[in-house]
Amino acid sequence: MSNSNPVYPVIWHDDRVLLIDQTRLPQEYTVVEIRHYEDMAAAIKTMIVRGAPAIGVAAAYGMYLGARAIAATDRQQFLSELETVAETLRQTRPTAVNLFWAIARMLKTARGTLGSVDHLKAVLLETAQTIQAEDLQTCRAIGEHGLNALPKTPEKLRLLTHCNAGALATAGYGTALGVVRSAWIAGRLERLYADETRPRLQGAKLTAWECVQEGIPVTVIAEGMAAHCMNRGMVDAVVVGADRIAANGDTANKIGTYQVAIAARAHGIPFFVAAPFSTVDFELASGREIPIEERDPVELYQIGTTRLTPERGVDYYNPAFDVTPASLIAAIVTERGAIAPGELAQWRGVQAG
Amino acid sequence: MSNSNPVYPVIWHDDRVLLIDQTRLPQEYTVVEIRHYEDMAAAIKTMIVRGAPAIGVAAAYGMYLGARAIAATDRQQFLSELETVAETLRQTRPTAVNLFWAIARMLKTARGTLGSVDHLKAVLLETAQTIQAEDLQTCRAIGEHGLNALPKTPEKLRLLTHCNAGALATAGYGTALGVVRSAWIAGRLERLYADETRPRLQGAKLTAWECVQEGIPVTVIAEGMAAHCMNRGMVDAVVVGADRIAANGDTANKIGTYQVAIAARAHGIPFFVAAPFSTVDFELASGREIPIEERDPVELYQIGTTRLTPERGVDYYNPAFDVTPASLIAAIVTERGAIAPGELAQWRGVQAG
Repeated sequence: MSNSNPVYPVIWHDDRVLLIDQTRLPQEYTVVEIRHYEDMAAAIKTMIVRGAPAIGVAAAYGMYLGARAIAATDRQQFLSELETVAETLRQTRPTAVNLFWAIARMLKTARGTLGSVDHLKAVLLETAQTIQAEDLQTCRAIGEHGLNALPKTPEKLRLLTHCNAGALATAGYGTALGVVRSAWIAGRLERLYADETRPRLQGAKLTAWECVQEGIPVTVIAEGMAAHCMNRGMVDAVVVGADRIAANGDTANKIGTYQVAIAARAHGIPFFVAAPFSTVDFELASGREIPIEERDPVELYQIGTTRLTPERGVDYYNPAFDVTPASLIAAIVTERGAIAPGELAQWRGVQAG
Repeated sequence: MSNSNPVYPVIWHDDRVLLIDQTRLPQEYTVVEIRHYEDMAAAIKTMIVRGAPAIGVAAAYGMYLGARAIAATDRQQFLSELETVAETLRQTRPTAVNLFWAIARMLKTARGTLGSVDHLKAVLLETAQTIQAEDLQTCRAIGEHGLNALPKTPEKLRLLTHCNAGALATAGYGTALGVVRSAWIAGRLERLYADETRPRLQGAKLTAWECVQEGIPVTVIAEGMAAHCMNRGMVDAVVVGADRIAANGDTANKIGTYQVAIAARAHGIPFFVAAPFSTVDFELASGREIPIEERDPVELYQIGTTRLTPERGVDYYNPAFDVTPASLIAAIVTERGAIAPGELAQWRGVQAG
């Protein structure tokens, strides 16, 4: 690990936010400096920062940057102007749950804190930093629990992942890649196979880049190769992230995940989902209730400036997610531990409490 | 079918060969005129024509073009110079079985034909045309047998294919796409789902293009979406081609095929292989004996001028084929009929006879 260089997509430094520009990875490593909340809103909208937890952290800092710029010293005036900041940030990615959650927490903190406007501003900065620290802590706990849940043999594991549930998508360390990192740090990782993950290629671009930063051995494959690799005995376990988990353990994640899970089952290879416990939506009885967003077909017919398909006459289907049924999942690894999907429902009360 | 425009990758017309330049599809439809055998060798080498049966047809015409240019009127001198032509054509794609087969047949015909050199030349042209006609006939028979083997319900089928086992890869009509065409002509095709087929994207490029030429409704998906489509009830059967079939029915085909077969089985969807009977290699007891070629990783890390992955520090695994076990195959559809994989061995003697 001599060349270890941990990845933090959002950094608070010297009174400004530094964001890794994820739209330019892996070819260019560029850090964007954000000093105004409007710029943070633009950064979230244009996906300079992406990944649900990372967006939450960025939005929290965006709230502070907005608060800092408010000239009013009257508390009510301040709170009123802060609401405008919040609304601007909310407009950026209307389906991102963590975005709304982080903004709401910042607003609630401001409203619930006594004292001068200057004091409120200081508390808001602390709160953004706390949100960031908590997410990092959650990811590290997921990594630790995931490592304990991985197969005990062989000693050196070959893991496979799909898409990017990595440091770049969180405050740092990652969820699925958090498990990979924990295995690597513990000396139990031989190699990570990274599905390139069509159509947006987050595996080839982001997961591969993260691994290179920390010297983790990574092999990029097209996802159609995953079953073949399993058949050749090249994969000991699969670890993926999650966008939404139903109460019965059915898990929505990046399109292609379901196919990997079916292949893993066919080869007797354990398939793990790694995600913050907050990803579990107890309002959803099963995966059938999870809506599947369809994205622009341009993702299928063009890469860079290269057109892949005929200009006319072709239809496209471009679902962003698919649902892996609980029956194919060995465990859902959260900061509370590795939970068998069937036992998830027992945790509902724990969450409420 | 008003806009039907059948695809023939190799055409003999007006004393020259016309080849569709497959390296420029789907963006440009360019026809290359070939009048000299050296140009045919170059066309095969640079993949202007590709697909095993199509290469065989092209090589046969290449042999005729070479024969036509020989000035000698002495029979032995002619045959000797024809051997030089054959050797040049053999050098183009050293692993293409159909290439060697077609060249050998042309040489054998020349040696076995009595009469003047002019007569030999005429017979060689006839033989090339016969090879082409036979391949087209084989594909049409595969299409017919495949149509009969497809599920009887629903009336309008949604088929899924991987890669391009189409007209472009044969004398015309195709193998897997021959079955699709027969279903379309019979009014039994609702839609074809075409896996884009990473890394070389033959589905997005060639299969989609072929369908557009004949007005066949086609939806391009990333192959990671296939299982999701099956789960949503969007696919009634899968039909793919084959590069090599072992005596027990295990089938080597484009990488990614195996994963589709596993997904089809998980959803109770029949999975068909369509290929000329000559694809069966009775010397191979099972798929374990089929060597898997690895290709240049550039196919994984670059598309057009766009680099997908980090420049350094990433490994790649790029197998060209995978093996689908016979147990996942409903039937192997050949010009002799749809054969259950387990019954393939019974046909060994039939082939010898």
